[in-house]
Amino acid sequence: MSFLADGDTCRGQALDEIHAAVMARPCDGKVADYIPALASVDANRCGIAFATLDGEMHAAGDANIPFSIQSISKVFGLVLAMQRMGDDIWQRVGMEPSGQPFNSIVQLEWEHGIPRNPFINAGAILVADTLVSHFSSSRQAFLSFVRRLAGCERCDINEEVLASESRHGSRNAALAHLMKSFGNIEAEVDDVLSHYFFQCSLEMSCTELAQSLLFLANRGVHPLSAERVTTPRDAHRVNAILSTSGMYDQSGQFAFSVGLPAKSGVGGGIVAIVPGLGVISAWSPALNKHGNSTRALTMITELAGRLGLSIY
Amino acid sequence: MSFLADGDTCRGQALDEIHAAVMARPCDGKVADYIPALASVDANRCGIAFATLDGEMHAAGDANIPFSIQSISKVFGLVLAMQRMGDDIWQRVGMEPSGQPFNSIVQLEWEHGIPRNPFINAGAILVADTLVSHFSSSRQAFLSFVRRLAGCERCDINEEVLASESRHGSRNAALAHLMKSFGNIEAEVDDVLSHYFFQCSLEMSCTELAQSLLFLANRGVHPLSAERVTTPRDAHRVNAILSTSGMYDQSGQFAFSVGLPAKSGVGGGIVAIVPGLGVISAWSPALNKHGNSTRALTMITELAGRLGLSIY
Amino acid sequence: MSFLADGDTCRGQALDEIHAAVMARPCDGKVADYIPALASVDANRCGIAFATLDGEMHAAGDANIPFSIQSISKVFGLVLAMQRMGDDIWQRVGMEPSGQPFNSIVQLEWEHGIPRNPFINAGAILVADTLVSHFSSSRQAFLSFVRRLAGCERCDINEEVLASESRHGSRNAALAHLMKSFGNIEAEVDDVLSHYFFQCSLEMSCTELAQSLLFLANRGVHPLSAERVTTPRDAHRVNAILSTSGMYDQSGQFAFSVGLPAKSGVGGGIVAIVPGLGVISAWSPALNKHGNSTRALTMITELAGRLGLSIY
Amino acid sequence: MSFLADGDTCRGQALDEIHAAVMARPCDGKVADYIPALASVDANRCGIAFATLDGEMHAAGDANIPFSIQSISKVFGLVLAMQRMGDDIWQRVGMEPSGQPFNSIVQLEWEHGIPRNPFINAGAILVADTLVSHFSSSRQAFLSFVRRLAGCERCDINEEVLASESRHGSRNAALAHLMKSFGNIEAEVDDVLSHYFFQCSLEMSCTELAQSLLFLANRGVHPLSAERVTTPRDAHRVNAILSTSGMYDQSGQFAFSVGLPAKSGVGGGIVAIVPGLGVISAWSPALNKHGNSTRALTMITELAGRLGLSIY
Repeated sequence: MSFLADGDTCRGQALDEIHAAVMARPCDGKVADYIPALASVDANRCGIAFATLDGEMHAAGDANIPFSIQSISKVFGLVLAMQRMGDDIWQRVGMEPSGQPFNSIVQLEWEHGIPRNPFINAGAILVADTLVSHFSSSRQAFLSFVRRLAGCERCDINEEVLASESRHGSRNAALAHLMKSFGNIEAEVDDVLSHYFFQCSLEMSCTELAQSLLFLANRGVHPLSAERVTTPRDAHRVNAILSTSGMYDQSGQFAFSVGLPAKSGVGGGIVAIVPGLGVISAWSPALNKHGNSTRALTMITELAGRLGLSIY
Repeated sequence: MSFLADGDTCRGQALDEIHAAVMARPCDGKVADYIPALASVDANRCGIAFATLDGEMHAAGDANIPFSIQSISKVFGLVLAMQRMGDDIWQRVGMEPSGQPFNSIVQLEWEHGIPRNPFINAGAILVADTLVSHFSSSRQAFLSFVRRLAGCERCDINEEVLASESRHGSRNAALAHLMKSFGNIEAEVDDVLSHYFFQCSLEMSCTELAQSLLFLANRGVHPLSAERVTTPRDAHRVNAILSTSGMYDQSGQFAFSVGLPAKSGVGGGIVAIVPGLGVISAWSPALNKHGNSTRALTMITELAGRLGLSIY
Repeated sequence: MSFLADGDTCRGQALDEIHAAVMARPCDGKVADYIPALASVDANRCGIAFATLDGEMHAAGDANIPFSIQSISKVFGLVLAMQRMGDDIWQRVGMEPSGQPFNSIVQLEWEHGIPRNPFINAGAILVADTLVSHFSSSRQAFLSFVRRLAGCERCDINEEVLASESRHGSRNAALAHLMKSFGNIEAEVDDVLSHYFFQCSLEMSCTELAQSLLFLANRGVHPLSAERVTTPRDAHRVNAILSTSGMYDQSGQFAFSVGLPAKSGVGGGIVAIVPGLGVISAWSPALNKHGNSTRALTMITELAGRLGLSIY
Repeated sequence: MSFLADGDTCRGQALDEIHAAVMARPCDGKVADYIPALASVDANRCGIAFATLDGEMHAAGDANIPFSIQSISKVFGLVLAMQRMGDDIWQRVGMEPSGQPFNSIVQLEWEHGIPRNPFINAGAILVADTLVSHFSSSRQAFLSFVRRLAGCERCDINEEVLASESRHGSRNAALAHLMKSFGNIEAEVDDVLSHYFFQCSLEMSCTELAQSLLFLANRGVHPLSAERVTTPRDAHRVNAILSTSGMYDQSGQFAFSVGLPAKSGVGGGIVAIVPGLGVISAWSPALNKHGNSTRALTMITELAGRLGLSIY
């Protein structure tokens, strides 16, 4: 693996070239339009960042522009809940891949209100319930947690997106009420959804996202602050679930073709953990039919292939 | 990773201790009884082997006793089909986790006869169809392939198990006919099932299994014969699907708690790939409710934990 | 059909004998306990009434005690919506049997938010949406409608049941939000559920219920008031859907063994329409595993058999 | 019901007019093409017959041309099995509407190999299993039974259709093997399918079909031969299941708009039972998306409306 010798130079150059190549091609895909606030984002935005454990940050394109992280927030929510609840959380949410669309209600009924994993919507709503129940102000706790990880006080909610999410959240409401009917939601459904929509509305840039998740590549310790965020075991666990379930119903294909723990969001962002090395974060708003950003997917696939990053 | 310095000693000792510990405890679980030929196996059998890329083989307990590899044969079938068909095979079988029991027919109907991945029964039957269609004698080709990988001419079919499988194969016949109805089976269903039951009836020992799959830990090249079995890319791919889908509906939990690509069979065997290092194979007939061997699972979990083998 | 000669005497005697026989046997089944207000009803209550088109009313046992009509209210809701909307309602709710439990959410997702028929919960919630949207006060309109049909101003809501329903309505909330997510609910979900729980909480006696539905046995005209409630065609239609879908997932068996359009509720009531003759209504709180009253079912089955009432 | 006075004249005239009207309009729909032998039938064929209990036979159009009765044969199979097995058959097949396409395999898996009713494919295959197990030659027994009912020795199998069915029967094979895997098929699957395809390949004309099923309109006694074919109770039962489940997934709509027990087949035939009066049989090959003949459906709907035949 010769790239290790002059890794930094190599990575920076790889990012630039891959970003340039992807910008030179026409962009497939379609910006998410299920809420108006997302539909208005410029489809041509495109950025990528690679933060390494030794403190380097490589970036190309719109890597410093904040975007709606959407489902990527599920990673922060889960880690915060694991910190607070320990292993008890796994009594109420599974860790198996779902084999169903991310917002399917079918499997939730079959499995009596226990979501398959914390990265489908039902699972993240369940996690939101634990946060609402364990913090006096779960929103504030969530925001402080992310800001500390990102080393950035600027990260904040987009109020327009938040209002839009709340108005178009019927399916998530259905999931929450169904779990409530099985006794697997403790707080009031309205409060749980409120937290869930709040965290989905967070905006961060590629560089902020990459930096914030470095602890997952470093056995639970954030390399910049030296804060232990999770145990080594829990860092492995989060990476394991990301590997099987982080990319909607393209998770298997992503493992197959890239081979890294990763999470995507319908805002067009993708983060990928490279254990022992760092975190890649890419963003471009147009999505493929699975809800994953076409350009972010291409850039991460090419980068992982070029640098030989697959964990398998 | 200090164990690398004196890895061999360390691994051998770990195997002995872990095997002794598991034998000292009462054994949970139940020997597979869906066919009579499996139900008669001695539940107390228990072995483990760890083959490394540098040619070492560590073993403890019944590591040299052949057992029915059952679904582990799906790995050999897939690799042989990938050799023969290249990427075309992925037009006819998916690579996504299934989220359903391994022999469920529901998802197969929803998805119009395209199995979710090659490690559920429908997927392996599909792979069997490609072998039957591409080889003049697919059974002989399969057996030669495995024997060459294992470096062992002794490996053979258990005729009693084969007869038993064929008599109790109604559900697999249902899967095959359903795929045929969607046009996704080319050969005669009887021939396809015949091959499928044949490969399930293969017997191998832990040491033979571990040695035969070393190429998956070595980017496609078998370290003992120097034969290139797959491209590096295809070795990654097989490991990726093993990671998301190799352990029935405990695949997520295995990734979570062990963190290695692995495949289990209802004969009580489990193989786990340690990329860059070697292959672990364990066997004990009693199964948990997911169809995975309880003792083999315990031994691999403890070994991986102790040696820090998780890829995540 | 010799009973016609002295039908009245015959029917009255049949009711008495059948009621006595059922009271002489121990009662199987279990009072509904999903809400506390229902669980406290005396399990030994048992009544039956048979209202005929010529104005006779036969009754036995607790036929004049009001009970919670629960899902039987779906019939009134549907008829009122058909009056108001005409055939447009069939664009938003189907008329096919469901083959699923009455509160299943699976089929609703598969079929994109269109409930299979108006007698499963999702369908009745959809009907409630149309009432809320078409009446300035849908609750008052509903209550007036039922009171007029029953010829009884006394019929009213049980406030304790209403409060209890609202507190335990998570699954119905899930159904409503899921339909909303498919665009098939127009009003606010809270208002729709409010109306739905209101109508479920109505209390009526066997005699009131039997009288109120006589128009369905008389091609749409209420024989006592001479009011045309529906067209003959719509009366046929309601009876047709009652025949295929009125008795939860025992509808087929009820058609098979009794052969009358009918609707049951978890309060223990059952109404059965005898086209051209009259309406039978029976009540006893203990339910079988399908949610139908065991004693009411027995009494209606025996009465229909004895009087030869099957329409098939 | 004034038509009874001069019913015969009235009915004959109605048939002629309705047939003429339907022939005057262009024909929607598409001839079944899942097997070549059916696809070659002339789409313009169209006939209707109405046999009454008093021995009259009214007919219009191609009422005497034999056509492939396909699923209508399920009625004969069920009645023959009920004769032979009595109520025991209801331990192995249900009587509930299915809410699923006629050849769906999903529900069969959920319900552990017990088909929902005898008129979906799985149910009819189950019935075929009982015939194969109870008769030394089930095919001969079936053919003799139908010929006796139709008063016609000419009725026979179309060998070309039979061969075609067998070659394209993968989905039915999947259903049979799945039931076998649950222990709900006793005979060899090949023998069961063989009988099933045999009965599907029977050819009869509208007049023969109408005459053969008169016993269902006459409480179990064939009015022409005076043979008791079933008990009155069993005749009611068959009519009840026909009412809820005879018209594929248009059964609810047919009950709603016509209101008669009926069975359709993909050969384009429909039979409808008019209890106490007679049997209507119509045929025209082009099918709607539910698999029901568009013209046969139109003719029966108009006839039932005009003569006021709805049982509801």
